[in-house]
Amino acid sequence: MREKDFARALALFYQPPRPKAGVHPLASVALSARIGENASIGPFAVIGENVVLGNNAVLHPHVVIYEGAEIGDDFYAHAHAVVREHCRIGHRVILQNGVIVGGDGFGFAKRADGTHAKIVQSGVTVIEDDVEIQTLTSVDRATVGETRVKRGAKIDSLVQIGHACVVGEDDIICSQTGLAGSTVLGKGVLLAGQVGVSGHLTIHDGAVIYAQSGIGGDVAAGQVMSGSPAFEARDWLRSITAFPKLPELLRTVRQLEKRLATIEQGES
Amino acid sequence: MREKDFARALALFYQPPRPKAGVHPLASVALSARIGENASIGPFAVIGENVVLGNNAVLHPHVVIYEGAEIGDDFYAHAHAVVREHCRIGHRVILQNGVIVGGDGFGFAKRADGTHAKIVQSGVTVIEDDVEIQTLTSVDRATVGETRVKRGAKIDSLVQIGHACVVGEDDIICSQTGLAGSTVLGKGVLLAGQVGVSGHLTIHDGAVIYAQSGIGGDVAAGQVMSGSPAFEARDWLRSITAFPKLPELLRTVRQLEKRLATIEQGES
Amino acid sequence: MREKDFARALALFYQPPRPKAGVHPLASVALSARIGENASIGPFAVIGENVVLGNNAVLHPHVVIYEGAEIGDDFYAHAHAVVREHCRIGHRVILQNGVIVGGDGFGFAKRADGTHAKIVQSGVTVIEDDVEIQTLTSVDRATVGETRVKRGAKIDSLVQIGHACVVGEDDIICSQTGLAGSTVLGKGVLLAGQVGVSGHLTIHDGAVIYAQSGIGGDVAAGQVMSGSPAFEARDWLRSITAFPKLPELLRTVRQLEKRLATIEQGES
Repeated sequence: MREKDFARALALFYQPPRPKAGVHPLASVALSARIGENASIGPFAVIGENVVLGNNAVLHPHVVIYEGAEIGDDFYAHAHAVVREHCRIGHRVILQNGVIVGGDGFGFAKRADGTHAKIVQSGVTVIEDDVEIQTLTSVDRATVGETRVKRGAKIDSLVQIGHACVVGEDDIICSQTGLAGSTVLGKGVLLAGQVGVSGHLTIHDGAVIYAQSGIGGDVAAGQVMSGSPAFEARDWLRSITAFPKLPELLRTVRQLEKRLATIEQGES
Repeated sequence: MREKDFARALALFYQPPRPKAGVHPLASVALSARIGENASIGPFAVIGENVVLGNNAVLHPHVVIYEGAEIGDDFYAHAHAVVREHCRIGHRVILQNGVIVGGDGFGFAKRADGTHAKIVQSGVTVIEDDVEIQTLTSVDRATVGETRVKRGAKIDSLVQIGHACVVGEDDIICSQTGLAGSTVLGKGVLLAGQVGVSGHLTIHDGAVIYAQSGIGGDVAAGQVMSGSPAFEARDWLRSITAFPKLPELLRTVRQLEKRLATIEQGES
Repeated sequence: MREKDFARALALFYQPPRPKAGVHPLASVALSARIGENASIGPFAVIGENVVLGNNAVLHPHVVIYEGAEIGDDFYAHAHAVVREHCRIGHRVILQNGVIVGGDGFGFAKRADGTHAKIVQSGVTVIEDDVEIQTLTSVDRATVGETRVKRGAKIDSLVQIGHACVVGEDDIICSQTGLAGSTVLGKGVLLAGQVGVSGHLTIHDGAVIYAQSGIGGDVAAGQVMSGSPAFEARDWLRSITAFPKLPELLRTVRQLEKRLATIEQGES
């Protein structure tokens, strides 16, 4: 059975419980907020001023939508998910528990005396349609402009997406990976778990980065990279296979030096 | 003084504050929930439909227990901890702030057009007796069946336990470690900080994995591993000691080649 | 334009929305708490017994301050931030969403039978003036005494600061870095992303640690380190440049051995 057939079969047998429609009396909803049809807003959910929320939204308890956020249809947010001020979210987006969309970027300017001044994070985070973000992941807002997660990207738990990054369409980002500021990912990129990516670089379409790799420069389309710092995975595999032999190699070379010196002395 | 004596002495001098018994009027408790004796349920805590909660439970403010979860005696959950639908938790379990038990596993099926379909996560997470989980750790539910954390395991902060994993009895998992789906840990395993473990493999009883290691295959009982990818820690220690000498080794070998060529020319 | 001028200019054009002053009727504030002037306390915020909170505090919805915490002026806490019991926080401190200050340290004593007894975490966390902590970061309380983050330090998202650590003045700690217990950082230290630091060691003033490094011993003032385990960044750069050449080096040395053996046979 192919994976997608398995997915379809499973969905026939089990569907997660869906909270009842309606706004719970213990939710806090601003009068200026516009909420679509058939919404389910749980207890202690907070919807700020001027929020726009599409149809069929499910907000579990303790979801907080800051003022001015705009969210499409079929939004599904689990307990303790947060959407910060003025962020924009498309249709059919799922946020698991504890996801933070639009927290301040990590931006500071160093003063002459060594202290750091906070740079106001005036930008937003934009999440396009069909994105799913797993538990306890943070997608920071931009200093200026926007951080963007494009259509269909799936982001696992405990991932950090820095300010002004772009995550490409249908990208898969596995758990505990971090993107520093202004990283751009192309379409269909796969980052395995615990990958670290420096800022201000581009990983082009279809690239694959193995777990625990460190990416410090651009990656070409379709390239497969591994290591910290990363290089071609095929070459990396050869290097890490050789790595345990390194101590023996050192000894061999020292012996070669001695043997060669003996020969050279004999010839002189 | 041995560590366990220190622990006992310290407990005589300090005990953390315990919230008063009773259900706070600003908590939201479903009528169908069954709550044991002597419970302390803080403001804005949420207990869903058909939840079963044992005796002496402490739920700090903002703890959310989704519908159908079953929890044993002496449960202690700090603010913002979450137990998702239908998960099962044993006795004397402690969840620190922000822990998510039973968030959806990261499971998607790739369609022909490159997009990903969500696989319904129909399974649960089971936490056995005497488990403690530190702040902001996520133990995902299984796609089918269960994710299980066995009796007495202790899991540090910001750890990711993927879907259908098994954490063994008395295991210690340090901060920021991640287990991909269907990883099985034996009893008494120690994973140091920032370790990454690929899925569908077994780390057998008593194995020890050093910090920042990457585990891509089975680990035998009692084995001590290090490196990314990991191998025997003893051998790894020799390799990483040799690693800083690698540039000099390269130069030496180039010189050996020249010296050897000189001799060979002399002989020809 | 220098970075700090950019910061100043940007602040003229954009200021994040500031919640209205006043205590929201759906906040839960203990009668014994003392709250300064001009506070803004959002819905579902919780302020425990005997909390002291300075002037101009902003507590977004769902912020939880446990009993006995003491917090200075101009405190700004985003939704779902937590300050645990008896912790102390200075002036002008900013906590982004989901930050946990003072969660229990990861301290257990191993019993003869292999199980682990929890060591009561009797200490606190102290955050000094002008500290900012980004989303979903955990600064654990100490087993005894205190964990301390000194004046002006900035800590990024998903960072783990273990029990009894000291973070120095004006330090910068980037995302997903972890400090094990009792680590001491000097002043002006920079830890890049995903760094891991073992416990019971000191990184002295002005040291710089590159991304994904592992620090297992003391680091001298001003030293620049990289690698896992880390050594001088300058030397590390040479080693990792040589690393992809390791498989070829192995082959070369094997050939040298053969060629040398041929010569030696000829001479014998």
